[in-house]
Parts: sequence; C-alpha cells; structure tokens
Amino acid sequence: MDTIKGKPGLINVFLESGRDYSGSSAVIIGAPMDFTVSFRAGSRFGPNAIREMSWVLENYSPYMDRDLSNMNIFDYGDLELAFGNPERSLSIIKNAAAEVFNDGKFPVFLGGEHLISLPVIEAAFEKYGGDLVLLHFDAHADLREDYAGESLSHATVIRQCSRFIKPENIYQFGIRSGTGDEFTWGRENTNFYPFEIVEPLKKVLPEIKNKPVYITLDIDVVDPAFAPGTGTPEPGGCSAADMLKAVHLLADCDVKGFDLVEVMPDSDPAGITGALAAKIVREGLLSFVK
Amino acid sequence: MDTIKGKPGLINVFLESGRDYSGSSAVIIGAPMDFTVSFRAGSRFGPNAIREMSWVLENYSPYMDRDLSNMNIFDYGDLELAFGNPERSLSIIKNAAAEVFNDGKFPVFLGGEHLISLPVIEAAFEKYGGDLVLLHFDAHADLREDYAGESLSHATVIRQCSRFIKPENIYQFGIRSGTGDEFTWGRENTNFYPFEIVEPLKKVLPEIKNKPVYITLDIDVVDPAFAPGTGTPEPGGCSAADMLKAVHLLADCDVKGFDLVEVMPDSDPAGITGALAAKIVREGLLSFVK
Amino acid sequence: MDTIKGKPGLINVFLESGRDYSGSSAVIIGAPMDFTVSFRAGSRFGPNAIREMSWVLENYSPYMDRDLSNMNIFDYGDLELAFGNPERSLSIIKNAAAEVFNDGKFPVFLGGEHLISLPVIEAAFEKYGGDLVLLHFDAHADLREDYAGESLSHATVIRQCSRFIKPENIYQFGIRSGTGDEFTWGRENTNFYPFEIVEPLKKVLPEIKNKPVYITLDIDVVDPAFAPGTGTPEPGGCSAADMLKAVHLLADCDVKGFDLVEVMPDSDPAGITGALAAKIVREGLLSFVK
Amino acid sequence: MDTIKGKPGLINVFLESGRDYSGSSAVIIGAPMDFTVSFRAGSRFGPNAIREMSWVLENYSPYMDRDLSNMNIFDYGDLELAFGNPERSLSIIKNAAAEVFNDGKFPVFLGGEHLISLPVIEAAFEKYGGDLVLLHFDAHADLREDYAGESLSHATVIRQCSRFIKPENIYQFGIRSGTGDEFTWGRENTNFYPFEIVEPLKKVLPEIKNKPVYITLDIDVVDPAFAPGTGTPEPGGCSAADMLKAVHLLADCDVKGFDLVEVMPDSDPAGITGALAAKIVREGLLSFVK
Amino acid sequence: MDTIKGKPGLINVFLESGRDYSGSSAVIIGAPMDFTVSFRAGSRFGPNAIREMSWVLENYSPYMDRDLSNMNIFDYGDLELAFGNPERSLSIIKNAAAEVFNDGKFPVFLGGEHLISLPVIEAAFEKYGGDLVLLHFDAHADLREDYAGESLSHATVIRQCSRFIKPENIYQFGIRSGTGDEFTWGRENTNFYPFEIVEPLKKVLPEIKNKPVYITLDIDVVDPAFAPGTGTPEPGGCSAADMLKAVHLLADCDVKGFDLVEVMPDSDPAGITGALAAKIVREGLLSFVK
Amino acid sequence: MDTIKGKPGLINVFLESGRDYSGSSAVIIGAPMDFTVSFRAGSRFGPNAIREMSWVLENYSPYMDRDLSNMNIFDYGDLELAFGNPERSLSIIKNAAAEVFNDGKFPVFLGGEHLISLPVIEAAFEKYGGDLVLLHFDAHADLREDYAGESLSHATVIRQCSRFIKPENIYQFGIRSGTGDEFTWGRENTNFYPFEIVEPLKKVLPEIKNKPVYITLDIDVVDPAFAPGTGTPEPGGCSAADMLKAVHLLADCDVKGFDLVEVMPDSDPAGITGALAAKIVREGLLSFVK
Repeated sequence: MDTIKGKPGLINVFLESGRDYSGSSAVIIGAPMDFTVSFRAGSRFGPNAIREMSWVLENYSPYMDRDLSNMNIFDYGDLELAFGNPERSLSIIKNAAAEVFNDGKFPVFLGGEHLISLPVIEAAFEKYGGDLVLLHFDAHADLREDYAGESLSHATVIRQCSRFIKPENIYQFGIRSGTGDEFTWGRENTNFYPFEIVEPLKKVLPEIKNKPVYITLDIDVVDPAFAPGTGTPEPGGCSAADMLKAVHLLADCDVKGFDLVEVMPDSDPAGITGALAAKIVREGLLSFVK
Repeated sequence: MDTIKGKPGLINVFLESGRDYSGSSAVIIGAPMDFTVSFRAGSRFGPNAIREMSWVLENYSPYMDRDLSNMNIFDYGDLELAFGNPERSLSIIKNAAAEVFNDGKFPVFLGGEHLISLPVIEAAFEKYGGDLVLLHFDAHADLREDYAGESLSHATVIRQCSRFIKPENIYQFGIRSGTGDEFTWGRENTNFYPFEIVEPLKKVLPEIKNKPVYITLDIDVVDPAFAPGTGTPEPGGCSAADMLKAVHLLADCDVKGFDLVEVMPDSDPAGITGALAAKIVREGLLSFVK
Repeated sequence: MDTIKGKPGLINVFLESGRDYSGSSAVIIGAPMDFTVSFRAGSRFGPNAIREMSWVLENYSPYMDRDLSNMNIFDYGDLELAFGNPERSLSIIKNAAAEVFNDGKFPVFLGGEHLISLPVIEAAFEKYGGDLVLLHFDAHADLREDYAGESLSHATVIRQCSRFIKPENIYQFGIRSGTGDEFTWGRENTNFYPFEIVEPLKKVLPEIKNKPVYITLDIDVVDPAFAPGTGTPEPGGCSAADMLKAVHLLADCDVKGFDLVEVMPDSDPAGITGALAAKIVREGLLSFVK
Repeated sequence: MDTIKGKPGLINVFLESGRDYSGSSAVIIGAPMDFTVSFRAGSRFGPNAIREMSWVLENYSPYMDRDLSNMNIFDYGDLELAFGNPERSLSIIKNAAAEVFNDGKFPVFLGGEHLISLPVIEAAFEKYGGDLVLLHFDAHADLREDYAGESLSHATVIRQCSRFIKPENIYQFGIRSGTGDEFTWGRENTNFYPFEIVEPLKKVLPEIKNKPVYITLDIDVVDPAFAPGTGTPEPGGCSAADMLKAVHLLADCDVKGFDLVEVMPDSDPAGITGALAAKIVREGLLSFVK
Repeated sequence: MDTIKGKPGLINVFLESGRDYSGSSAVIIGAPMDFTVSFRAGSRFGPNAIREMSWVLENYSPYMDRDLSNMNIFDYGDLELAFGNPERSLSIIKNAAAEVFNDGKFPVFLGGEHLISLPVIEAAFEKYGGDLVLLHFDAHADLREDYAGESLSHATVIRQCSRFIKPENIYQFGIRSGTGDEFTWGRENTNFYPFEIVEPLKKVLPEIKNKPVYITLDIDVVDPAFAPGTGTPEPGGCSAADMLKAVHLLADCDVKGFDLVEVMPDSDPAGITGALAAKIVREGLLSFVK
Repeated sequence: MDTIKGKPGLINVFLESGRDYSGSSAVIIGAPMDFTVSFRAGSRFGPNAIREMSWVLENYSPYMDRDLSNMNIFDYGDLELAFGNPERSLSIIKNAAAEVFNDGKFPVFLGGEHLISLPVIEAAFEKYGGDLVLLHFDAHADLREDYAGESLSHATVIRQCSRFIKPENIYQFGIRSGTGDEFTWGRENTNFYPFEIVEPLKKVLPEIKNKPVYITLDIDVVDPAFAPGTGTPEPGGCSAADMLKAVHLLADCDVKGFDLVEVMPDSDPAGITGALAAKIVREGLLSFVK
C-alpha cells in the first residue's frame, strides 16, 4: 500500500511533471516577475495558475496523438527573484536559462511579464548563434526604445532583442497595438505581420524550417474573450483554436525553447486563461521536444 | 387588482414555466449533483443559475419564430438528492425520468455533473428501446472504464451508456479531450467526431432522422470564452452561435428528451454560461417539443 | 522640473483627452443612468470603466494609421443626473447633447442604459433634420411600445425614435432578441438586419453615404464572450473583431455623433468589456471626426 | 416512493416556507426595487440571495430554542414592480402590505432599496394607528427632505415617515452617516441614537414595550466587514452578533412586521450578507410571531 | 552561484516547510475531499489556498516569540483521494494519519470538508487510547445520526467520534447551528459550550491539561467576516483574534495533532480565510510541537 | 441652466475636492506605485479606488460635527511615476511632497505601496526638523535592513526613516508581523506597541502633543475582515471602528500631513477597503487641518 514516506503527495506541478532534473528532456521554470508593467500587475502568479489549471487537461493530445506520460518533464517551480529590481531579476533568469540550454534540455519559461523573455532569448542566442530565429506572438509590438524613460520594460523587449538578433530573423504575429513609431519601425525592420497569426505563419514556414527557432508568446495575442486574465487586454485578437493551430503548424520546425508570458490569474475567476496557457504548453512540449 | 393570495409572486423558474405538471408537454427538472467531479465542484447550483439567467431572454425565438408562451412547460424545481452518495442520487434521478417519459412528456434535465445523464438515458432507453440514438456534445470523450477506480463518474458516462445503447447508435461531437485509450475506443466503436460539431452533424442528420433521439449536452463543448462557468474548461471549442446552430439543425429529428450539464455559476460572475444554457434550453424546447 | 501646481496630475479621463471644451472638436460625456433596466443595473459605472480601461490602449490606431494625440478631445466627465427620475435625467442629457451639436462639435455619449440615447438622438435630429439616418447596433430590437407599462424604457428606445425619425431611415443590425411583435414591426418598418452586422452593413453603405448619420451602439450586440460586462447578455453575437470592422466600414460616412451604452463593469473582473468599448470609441473618433 | 407529480421539487424559497397563504401566520415578500439609489444598484437581487443563503441555516434557533418547522410561513416570492417607476412600484408594495396586515398576518418584506419600506410602514400605520412605534436600524439617517431633487428616495424614507408617524415615536439606531442637517433634525425630533445599537435599545425598551412596533432594518447598520454586500457600505458599524442580540432584545415587544433592506449580493461572492440577513429573518420570525 | 540543478525552485508548500519526511517533527497533509457537503463544495482547494496564503506570513511569531525556521516541518502535499467515494477516501486518510502517528510525528491535516477529520481522530484514538480528549471548534454541532440518509457526512462527524471517544472527553466550542436534537444531545452528552470559545476554554483548561489532546477546527467557528471562504458561513461567530487567542491558551496542553477544515477559497477573492488558516497553523505548530 | 462649458462634469476626485491648488489648505496626491511588493501587487489602483468609494460617504462627519464643504481641498490626481524604477519614482514623490509642505499646505498621500511614504517623510523632516514625530500604524514592522537584497522596499520603510528621524520619535502601533530581528530592533529602539492601537495611543498622547507629527498608516493594520483589499493581509488586527477612534484621538495633535497606503482594490469586490480608507481620509482632514 502507498505510504506517506514512500510516495510523494500531490503538489502543484505542471501535469505529470517529475521532480528529477537530470533525466529530463524539457524543463519548466516559472519567472514570477511583474515589476515593470504599465497597467495591472499580477502575472507573478501566472506560473502557478498555469500549473493548477493544467490539471483540467489530460496528458494525451488528440491533436498530436502523443502523450506527455511518455516524456520526461522536470518542473523546477519558480525562480526566486528580487522584488522591485528588474536588473538583478533578469540576471537570475539568464543564469537559469543558460544552464538549461547548456545541458541540452528544452526550456519552457512561464511568465511573469514579457520582460522575462529577454534574458532567455539572450541565452538562446548565445547557445544557438546568429541564425537564431525569433518568433513573437503578441498583441503589442514591444518595439519601444524606452517606456516612461526605462529601457528595460515589458514594452521594449523585442526592440532589445533586435540589438543582438538580426531584425530580419525576427517574425512578429498578431500585433495590433503600439505607437505609430513602433509600427513604422516594425514594418521597416522585422518580418511584421499585424492582426493575424495563422495565415502569415503558413507563409513564412518554409523560410524558417531549417533554422533554430525560439518562440516568445504573450498570451494577449489571443482575444481577451479567450484569455481575459492578462495585464493589458487588447480586443480584436485571434481565437484559442487559432493559437493552438499555430503551435501545431510549428511542429516541423527546429524549436529550441519557448516562453509563455503575461498570464494574470486574478481577474479571471474561471481560470480559462491558465487553462489555455497550459494547453499551449502541453501542445508545445509534444510538438517541439523530439 | 392583483392580490397576494390571488396571484403567485415571481419565483425562480425557467422563463414563464408554470407549476402545473398534469397539463404540461415538457418538464424541466434540476439534478443538483456534483459529487464525482475531478476538478471544481459547483454544478449543483447550475439549474438555478440557468433559471435565473433565463430571465434575460425573451419567450420568443427569432430563430424559430416560435414562442414559449404558446407551450405548456412545467418547471419542477430541483430533485432532492443524497449528498455524497452517487448511487442513491442516480436512482432518484432515474425514477423521475421514468415517470416523465411514461407520462408521455418531454423531459429537460439540468445538471449538475455529467453523471446525472446516465439514469435519464437509461430511462429513455427503457421507454424507446433499442433504436434509441444518443447524441453527445462534449469537450470530453467520457469513455473511461473507470476514473480513479470508480466506474460511476462524470468521466465514464458515455462508456456506461454503451453497455446498453449500441455504440453504433452513439454519436459524439466536439470531443477534444480524453486519454489515448478513450480516443482509440471512440474511433473504433462510436460515431466519433472530434473537434467540430456543425459539419459532422450535418453529415449524420439523414441517418438519424427517423429514429428516436436523446441528446446529452455538456456545456463545455463550447469554448470556455463563451461558457467559462464550467468545471473543466477545455480551450479550443466551438462558439455559442455554432452550438445554437446545431440545436436548430436537429429541429427535424424526433428528439425525445435532452439534458444540459456542467454549468457551474460560481466562476462566471456575468452569468454568460447560464444565459447560453438557458438559450439552448429555450431553443431546444421550441425545436423538439411538437 | 514638473511641479504640482504647474502640471495636472493623472485623472481618470479617456486616454489623452484634455479638459478644454472650447478648442475641442469632439466631446466625451458620460450619462450614468441605469434606472429602467429590467435585469441587472450597474451601467452607471460604465463611463468611468471605459475611461479606466482606455489606458490599456495606445493613442495610435494601426487600423486607421491615425493618432488621437493629433486630435483635440474634451472629456467632460459624467453628467449629474436625477437618481430614479428618468424624465428629468433625459432632459439633462438632451440639453448637454443640444449644446454640443449646436457648438459644431462631435459628441460621444457613454452610457448608462440604452434609454440615454433617446435625448441625444432627439438633439441630433433637431440639429440635422429629417434626413438623419439612425444606425442601431444591438442584440435587442428595443422596439416595444412600452415595457412593464412604461413607455420610457431601455426596451422602447428605438420605437420612441421612430416617432420622429422616419422608420425607413432607421437601420438595425445584429438584433437577436425581442418579442414576436417587435420582430414583426421591425421587419415591416425599419431596415431590419437580425443576427449579423458586417455583411448587411456593407450592403447598405451606398444608400447612407451622403446622409447625416447618428450611431447608437449597445455593447451587447457583441457576443457575451467578448463583452460579458453588460446588463442583459444575449449569447450568439458577433466577435469584437467584427464590431471593429463595422466601425471601420463607416469611416467614409458623414457620422455626426455616436453613443455606446450598456457597459456594466461589475460583472467583468478583467475589464474586457470596458477595453472593447474604449477601443470602439478610439476607432470611432479616429474614423468619424474629420 | 416520491414522484414528480406527487411532491414539489426544491425551489428557492426561504428555508422551509410553504406555498400556502391562507394557513400562514407570517408572509415573506420580496420587493426587488433599486431604482433611486445613489451609488450601486443591485439590491433587486437581494430577496433571492437571502432565500438562497437561508439554506446554509437550520430551521432551529439555539438562541431562541424554537424551530421554524413549527410555524407556518408563506414565501410569496417577489412582487412584480414597474422598472424605473418608483411611484407605481410603491403603490404595488403598499397594496401587498395592506392585504397582509388586513389578513392579520405578520409581514416580512425583503428589499430592495430602503424606499420600499415607506409603503409598508404606511400600511402598518393605517392598520395600527397613531401609537405605532417605528424602530429604524441603519448606518444612514435617511432624513433628507429630498435627494438630488427627488422626495421619493432611499435617502428620504424616514423623513417621509415622520409626516404621518409622530417623530417621538420614531427610534433610530446605529446612524453614522448623513448631512449636518439630517443629524440636527434627527437630534431635535426623533429618538436619535447614533453609532450604537445594543445599549440604546436596552435603554428604550421599557417605553416601547406596550405599543405596536414596526421595524425597518437596513443591513448597512452592520459594519461592512459583516455585510459587504450592500449599496453604500459605511465603515464603523456594529458586528453581526450585536445585530442578532438586538433582535433577541426585541422578542418581548409587540412587533407587527418588519423589513430588511439593501442586501446587494453581486459584490459579496461568499454570500455572507445574505446569510446574515437570512439569520436575522429567522430570528425575527421566531422572536416576533407568536 | 545557485543553479537549477543545485537548488529547488519555489513550489507551493506551507511557508518554509521542507520536503524531507524522515527528519521532520511535524507533517502537513492536505485532504482535498468535499464530496458530502450540503451547500457549496470547493474545500478540496483549501489546502493549496492555505499554502499559498502562508506566504504573506513570516516564519516568526511575535505572539510566541518562536520561529518556524527552527523547526523541521514536512509538507507532504495533498493525498490522492477517490472522487465521489467517501469510504475509500476516508480509508486513504486513515492510513496516512496512522503512519504519521506511529512514526511519532505531529500531524496537521488540512481539509477539505469536516468528514476528513473522522479517520484522523480514529487514528489518534488508536494511538493514544481511551484518555484522548477531543476539542472541537465549529459553528455547527456536527452531531447528527445521519444527514439526508448518509451516516458518513460532514454533519455527523462528531457524533461518529462519540462512538469511540467517550462523550465526556469531547469538548465543543463556539457551536451556534444545528437541529434541536443535536443541541439537546450535545448538552446532555458532551462538554457543550455554544456561541463562545475563549471563556469556556479558559474554564476547562485545568481538566484537560494532563491528557492527550486532539484538536479539530472548522474555520467557520470564526465569524464569516473574518473567514468568508467556507462552505456554510454562519454569522455571529468569534473574531480572528479570539481564535488565535484560543490556540495560544492551548500551548500548555499535550496536543498530539490537529486538523483545520472547510477553507473554501473560491468565494474569498482576497484570500483572508486562507491567511487566517495559515496563521492558525503556524501558531499551532509553534505552540504544540515541542 | 447648467451648461457643458459652464460647469465641470463629475470626475473621479475625492468627495467634493476642487481642482484649484492655490487656494487650497490640503492637497490629496495619489502615488500609484507597487513595484517592490513581495506578495500581491495592485495598490497602484488604490488612490482611484479611494476616490471612487469616497462617494458613498457624506461630506459631513457626525463624529467631528464638521463638514468638508467648509474646507478647500485640492485633489491633484495621481503622480506619473516610472514603472519598475523605484528610485526615480521616489524622487518624483519627494519633489511633490516638498512642494506641498513648502507651500504651507497639508498633504495627504494615497498609496500605492508603503515605500511611497519614505520620500514624503523625508520631505516632512526637511520641513519640520528634528522634532518631527512619526506615528506608524501597520500590521508589519517594516524594520528590515533590506528585503531580498533590496534596501528600498515596502518592508524596510520605517528602518529607512530611522536613519534620519530619531528612533525615540518613532511610534509604532498595531504591529503583529515581522522577523524576530525586526521585533527585537523595534522593542529596543522605537516606541513599539505591538497588536493594539487605541490603548497605547492614549498612553503616548501627552508626550507627542506639542511636537510636529507625521502619520503613516498602512491599511493592513486593520483586520482583513474590515480591509480585505490589501497586498499582505495579516489576520488578528483591530476593527474599523478602532481605527477611526485612533484618528479622532489625534485631533488635538499638531499633525502636519499623513499618508494612507496599501489599499488594493482588485481583491475586494465590495470596495469596503476603499470606503474605510476614504472615511479615514475624511476624518483625518477634518481632524488635522485647522
């Protein structure tokens, strides 16, 4: 019979993730940072909300006909960050990301605000080099030089990435909010596909197929109807089904890691944003981790 | 002038339902059971939430150009079940269902968890015999042999039905969650249409048109954006408009009764799930009760 | 350096609206009335919710490639109405609307319940005369003669308008709820397009293009998934993206003013209804104010 | 065995109230009116919330050692009022109250806003004459001549009563909000006990004991911690236990009826305001109905 | 520097609990069962809510001047129970409790509904024998023979205990709800102290001081103002400060274990019930584990 | 008659505050900063919540028999701070505070997190010099040297103040949470009164009466039952009535300014925390501004 000492109890991890790093092929890490957001904070509780809502899902994906039970996923829990100190927090995240990439594992970072993606992308770039393709799904362009005088901000993250990733290797999908300057800069520099995600993704798939790819996904790319629990909801986005379709389209690419950010559970009593995020993570793991 | 003793006050019944069983052609019965659910309980408050939200609707359906005021609906209220005792509760539900079927009336059962459908379908089968067609709209296959060791569970209900209804008379629509085993079994045994509801329904309409039909509808077949108030929200479903279209497609069939389950009001402060459920019930009554 | 006395602090106005009436081309006015509603009250807090949620948006519209910063918008705040006295409240609203029309400015009234549109439309009619076209986006026909004995009601407002605007100048879109009488009357008298908004709007655009147009928009025309914060949610509506598309289609018309009503923030913890309303207002201002 | 036709189902009535007016000694009537409130509306849902939350209680009171099962209570449901028309609504309420008083039954009116008490008190006065004592428990003095120009308002109700009940027969407890004029008028005219309820009540008990008494109780007399679900929460009130104690103190008086108003369920997700109101109603019935 | 593989991430455990059973002196176990409740379910999420809210607290108690950092606490996580099967679930809980008692550790069980206490108390009784004193803090007597025909129910748990613990060793505090029969039985058999907790506890302390004590604490003993997140809120209870005082009074007793049940987070958006529960657990650990 | 251009509309300011700085005697300023909090963020919306809830109050205080209408209050709105940059934000706050103090006006700062008090207290100290007495009402000691490595934190603010205000001029009331080190340091250095507020305040009144006083009030000093809307609720605090009494006790002191921090509206749907805060601000203005 099961005993307390012989069998771990239920704790809040992503689906059936284990707690063994060494044998794992993929690693889930929460980055509970929400210090630079301009409207509502609260995405620091995003990772745990995604874990909790993952329990409404099955391990099996009928879309991929694959099962998480056959994979070895390690859920680290959340990083211990420095409240109110973005620089120090980003450094902690970067170390964690570098460690996972260097150990040849597939990382999934759960935000937190979008700024947490910056150090992860830096680490990916350092590992996979100048060919690294960045796919950015978001309602917001995140292409500002600075925001309210701060260059490290959830609103500058892709512009920051463009300082080391060639803009022509950056693809942006679903963007429907930004300043005029951001839209101009995006249209002139990145592969900039506003409003839509599925059709432009189909179009660009051939050109990214043989390159290393990193995906950063802000849940607000989806319409607030499907993802109300986020800090800056922007009406007019795609459906949950479209978002899942985009993930499946990417199954043939050489994805090296991804992050999913800006889930903010407090304003979503039914938890449907966390459930959608968890489903994207499950489909992403089953699609990208070979 | 109206008087207190001469005229009943407003109580929480479905739209303009009356309180007279004998002259009624359709009977609404709440089955407030939520004991076996695996994630969130709370669907025991579903029937009253559907009744309350029915008041935002009109009696008239512009889709059907028919009016509930011209029908005689009896709203029984909720059954008094046995907290924590599924077997005894199911027996109470079955008696109620058998009584309604035997009196030649059209029953609408409001859940409660999906397990409440089992005794109603049993009663329908006993009344209408081996030709009875079961239409199942759901995000989940509900085809498990058992769940956490229990054979009576919200996750086993259609498999249980397959023990008396021939699997080839079972049609499943919109399924997008289950174990690998459930999907395999469904694909091999029932008429199994995952992900979509409207197109497959159109396809199968000819073959079910002349048979007695029972419909069991788990509100989570609809995407959580349209029905957030449910126990196990599964992103990637159909829209509310699609669900209504499916009901209208079935208007020409010989529907003998239906149930609508898993509405859980507590996590849906706007009550949009209850409103959708109430609208489905109204359209169902106007479509199916001749 | 900025000083307290030298620079106004942040207050809750619509995006970057100023506080100077005289130089403004458009005027935003809240009409916080919700006394005659039949289900949930609370739309009196709608105007402030729309203002608050406008801060998640940018001034720039990538749809129109125009920027609110280049316009001069005055946000008046809310009118001080008479609690529980519809007649007196409507009179206050009418005076305000007449003043704005007479000063040659473009008004945007934020409800509040739909009845607040009546005096604004009266004032528009008095200013722009018998050719005035009324576009009505709503889930509900609002064509009753009276409601529970009251002729001044949120459910009678378009019928009231038909007493001075010729019914053939009234266009109704997206209607999916009403009594049988309302649907009959609408079909026989107004340009009545139930269920859909984008396709019928495209169809009628040619015939309204050279006439003065007033738009009244009940947020519940959108499906409750996209706009849960409203008093009488009616499932089966259009998407947020469709609603924005309709606004953009109207950019070539000679729109003289509009109102947006029935935003009720209390049941929408994420504020997505207010965000959608704010986006419609921004797109409307950028589309209609030349 | 129980059958559907032989036994009524569970519907939302107050505890074990029956549906038979003629044999009842006490009558519960909901007055779902909230048209004149100055801040949040929503108390129209108060009566049903009190009924629903009454189910967390037992029929038995350990305070009184009496049991509701031994009484014959009729729960009428809610009156059908005229949305947005206070005058007509008050007239409907008055007719109902007069009927109950004239039939020698004990009425309990559930608000709704405080204005609903006015016609009930008028009816009580017409039945029980000039000696009628009015006990008023409230955070607000409700002594204005008019409110925003309206003499019929939730803020004028006790002043209105003072036009027919002698002010020296009016006792006000727990008042902690009002204009300076209201406090001056109250101190000069009524028996005015601000801030506290239990001690002043003990003091005045001897002088009211042999007179007919009507009680009007605004739930906001209790501190918002114990009754958050109300339209105008006023911090600094008494505890729930104090309020129950006040009811028990009144058990020896000749109470002819009472009302409990301003329960607004929407902002109280745990329903503790409804539970407190239901408990007050139960204790009141057991204390006052002989 | 910290590394992912070298240091565990933050997961949702009670304060600074470790994950090592063998060296621990106290063991926290969640029992997420809510199948037999009569009103609202949802206490299955209680243990995780208590863990999450424990993070608002410090390890140090200024009341006890002791610090959890100096203790070795093991947080097992939650037991995996059988949904909808009370018997099997209770058996799993009993095995876990017996193991902890037999290993000489101090158990803290977190509910879940009150029925989970029964197997823990059975295990305590089997370990500590006939002198075991049971202290019961609750709004409800829980002394029914059966509830809706079920003998295993949250409403029968103390009566069940009285079949093996001598009623004179059972002390009940704060009881303010039950049937007349329960109150009669309690007054005749147990040490029954309705309404109050601190004063009666002071009175009985001398007689229990030298006996082994088990404490079962239903959070609803506290007034719903202080603990709104519970299934059956009963107004008129003690304050949070009183409850903490009661725990401190018991510091000199020989407490062998305790449970805290009926925390239901979903209806308490601020989480104050979980915070109170967590503080009671912290004070309990610091007071009872020597 | 009122006109749009002749009369300002209703905007969200504190009660009847005006918009004229120069003639004002008191100035209300929002400091919407919540970047360094350790648990839930969201107090950036505190100032607007306090303003909104102030509208449930009257201008008249029956406690003080004074009326805000007779004072000249300027509500500045909120300061525009630097998201995610505490240093720069604090500098903006300090400039604003210095300006108000130097203009001889009485400032009321509304948080925001507790760290916003630091620059205001610095400015007060620079104005009023070494005799300045600091009164601190809080559940938390806020006496850490640093928090997670940051010296500028909501948890260090009073310790930071002790670097310029003599600890013997610092009085702390109601403290019931902190590390052992904080409690030791507080007991040894400041006037440290844990757990209680009213009695210790009475005791120290004589010694502070003739000194300039600044008050910093964290709303969480009040029990979470009365103030659930705060970031780190700590059960076991005082009541709302006690807090108001403390303000009234201070009416005879020479108070130079105060702040009220940590109101977080999102988790308090009834807004009772904002209402309490608004009432404290009203009573404070009426008590302190001569």
